[in-house]
Amino acid sequence: MRVLGVDPGLTRCGVGVVDGRPGRPGTLVFVDVVRTDPDLELGDRLLHLSRELTRHIAEHRPQEVAVERVFAQHNVRTVMGTAQAGAVAVLAAAQAGLPVRMYTPSEVKAAITGSGQADKRQMTAMVTRLLRLDSPPRPADAADALALAICHTWRGTAQSRLAAALAAQRNPGGRS
Amino acid sequence: MRVLGVDPGLTRCGVGVVDGRPGRPGTLVFVDVVRTDPDLELGDRLLHLSRELTRHIAEHRPQEVAVERVFAQHNVRTVMGTAQAGAVAVLAAAQAGLPVRMYTPSEVKAAITGSGQADKRQMTAMVTRLLRLDSPPRPADAADALALAICHTWRGTAQSRLAAALAAQRNPGGRS
Repeated sequence: MRVLGVDPGLTRCGVGVVDGRPGRPGTLVFVDVVRTDPDLELGDRLLHLSRELTRHIAEHRPQEVAVERVFAQHNVRTVMGTAQAGAVAVLAAAQAGLPVRMYTPSEVKAAITGSGQADKRQMTAMVTRLLRLDSPPRPADAADALALAICHTWRGTAQSRLAAALAAQRNPGGRS
Repeated sequence: MRVLGVDPGLTRCGVGVVDGRPGRPGTLVFVDVVRTDPDLELGDRLLHLSRELTRHIAEHRPQEVAVERVFAQHNVRTVMGTAQAGAVAVLAAAQAGLPVRMYTPSEVKAAITGSGQADKRQMTAMVTRLLRLDSPPRPADAADALALAICHTWRGTAQSRLAAALAAQRNPGGRS
């Protein structure tokens, strides 16, 4: 199963594509960070992000999408930007007819490292090891997007088959 | 100037179109509430909202868009839904090449009633009076979207002319 992981952010949005299946470490397909200029209007930032995500989906053809679920406990301004970027990612996936699953940061950490409290260094080390990379993924902050994708190849399968069947029923044309 | 006002929400998203200019009460063009089923997947809800907003923009051809700015002081779940719906609204406007201005609820209340603490009843009464409607707008909770649109016809002009000029410069094709 090929999965696109998205670590949403308005200024930096991590994007990672992984081929994998339950119990297997997975293979890196693509990793990048989509950046938008904080000096631009919000509409232009969301438009750029939407176009880039749509382009990555068309280019790498993931079958499913995993997006980080946002909580409101952090800085208000950051949370709003993250929620807005996340909405654009979920919308881009839905427009391509792809099922989306959302994971909290601690679900991803627990899946990848065994601990929901793992720090960034530990996560990056595990992503590097699991994908058998010679060095940590670049850009560094896209490691979270790869971790989301790996997590979903392991955990999403049963639920996402059901979601895919329902999506196909609602949207028989597939990628619309 | 024709303005689309959007009161974002995932379950109910208010949409109102008003023709108006500074110092004039304005004329109602269109009002509705876009609803999405809470039992659907988030992607399907955002997709429905995106399609409906895009359809309303194509049909009523507003020149500018006013969207309510979300704060994180309320219920976390509601705020996330509002931020996601707001992002879809801002994206739909940007995709149509329209400038977007965001207003806080108290800015709109102050513009319409003279008080940033006005209640819903007072807001609905003023919107009904300003647009010279025989009865309060239906659906009732779309009054906030009309209030946003009226507020923008009064307050947005100078800034939005600049924004429109910049948008045209960045996006010479107009509606893309």
